[in-house]
Amino acid sequence: MRQIALIIEYEGILSGWQRQKNAGSIQELMEEAIAAITSEEVKLTASGRTDAGVHALGQVVCFFSNTAIPIERLPHAINSKLPPTVVVRRAFEVPLDFHPRYDAKRKTYLYRIWNAPVRSPRERLYAAHERVPLDIEKMKAAVSALIGEHDFTSFCSSGSEVKHKVRTIYDIQIREKQFFTDEEDSKLITVEVSGNGFLYNMVRIIVGTLMEIGKGKPYDIGQILNGQDRRLAGPTAPAQGLFLKQVSYSSEDVKLR
Amino acid sequence: MRQIALIIEYEGILSGWQRQKNAGSIQELMEEAIAAITSEEVKLTASGRTDAGVHALGQVVCFFSNTAIPIERLPHAINSKLPPTVVVRRAFEVPLDFHPRYDAKRKTYLYRIWNAPVRSPRERLYAAHERVPLDIEKMKAAVSALIGEHDFTSFCSSGSEVKHKVRTIYDIQIREKQFFTDEEDSKLITVEVSGNGFLYNMVRIIVGTLMEIGKGKPYDIGQILNGQDRRLAGPTAPAQGLFLKQVSYSSEDVKLR
Repeated sequence: MRQIALIIEYEGILSGWQRQKNAGSIQELMEEAIAAITSEEVKLTASGRTDAGVHALGQVVCFFSNTAIPIERLPHAINSKLPPTVVVRRAFEVPLDFHPRYDAKRKTYLYRIWNAPVRSPRERLYAAHERVPLDIEKMKAAVSALIGEHDFTSFCSSGSEVKHKVRTIYDIQIREKQFFTDEEDSKLITVEVSGNGFLYNMVRIIVGTLMEIGKGKPYDIGQILNGQDRRLAGPTAPAQGLFLKQVSYSSEDVKLR
Repeated sequence: MRQIALIIEYEGILSGWQRQKNAGSIQELMEEAIAAITSEEVKLTASGRTDAGVHALGQVVCFFSNTAIPIERLPHAINSKLPPTVVVRRAFEVPLDFHPRYDAKRKTYLYRIWNAPVRSPRERLYAAHERVPLDIEKMKAAVSALIGEHDFTSFCSSGSEVKHKVRTIYDIQIREKQFFTDEEDSKLITVEVSGNGFLYNMVRIIVGTLMEIGKGKPYDIGQILNGQDRRLAGPTAPAQGLFLKQVSYSSEDVKLR
């Protein structure tokens, strides 16, 4: 018996990670593809759920298997059973006691904003569209108050049942890229957030708040954090702009880079 | 009566620009949207056709109209009648004798290649997938022989009825971008080609030939051009990687930037 970890990429258009009644999920697609290849019934464990509409560039999922298929052949074999919206990028053997969620040391999310007067066909599935021009210098200036260990209750959807709401944000990088040389008012803004863990909708509420700040609204991140009340922060940014980019583990545990 | 030029962006997934029997086309969608807004029957003229699967970031199309709608309101009004895959970015009034095809001075195409061992969900509609690692230095070295005025018969699909096959390529830029910091073998390669005009499938055959050169095949661009025979060049790269990026006009004719 081995434990196998896969790094997978998927488009979160239709549904989220987790199996649900009457709704196709990434988990279901993956479990069926692996079962078809290994002839074993498998149950996948992920580094965390992603909600409907949220994409993944580097989700990490694990399963136990007795398959004799060499590890380097697994991605191609499994990919042959997956639709174009889901793909296995890498496969690794990991220790039997490895857990993709509990052993995660750092997670990085990427959020994409198409900031332009008109919507973009090529970004319609992969970015939030914001018509109001965002002042990214204001957004960058607001970021420092979020870095470090804080109680993120104000940045957690109120439905969450998690009790311990202290998390550490290691880094937030905001970048902008002009797409058309002839249109100064049309740009793609990316917000990359990494931390030791995230509460329910935390990245989307952080981005939603930063976007309000970019519009010139007088949000004060320090006051929002101190207030420990979801109503103090900005709106939850749309799911389609969010990508789970990378999950990192201790190199002693596992050679997942 | 005014002539109005629109800069439009679209996804070429289903069909190409031109109206066809039994197939929805971008032209048809656009003409119906404009008719719904202006209550006039319109016939659109484009800077050129794009084939099925080919995208546009900056296609230029024109129509004649007596509409009283102010020009700056037209994009938003027309966009309200278009599906998410098509959008009007800008509208301009142009002289009545302006022609988007015959007056074009320069066209720029962008070709995107996902060069990685595994396919990518997020690039599945917007790039060609090439598994063999491409040597982009070899590709860059081959480009100079294409720049300038040449007879491009060898880079034109043999079905074309165009007789005059001399065109001028002004510039070809090849760039690469690593997408995952942890995967050196996965990158996006872009080829941007601008010229005074292009023959049928010319950009796709140029890119297909450059890709063969990137794989180490001994294609000699000078010999291919001199031979004036389509069979000498490489294969036609897939449509889905190609974007019509920009069409430029003389600033005296028209203020389309």
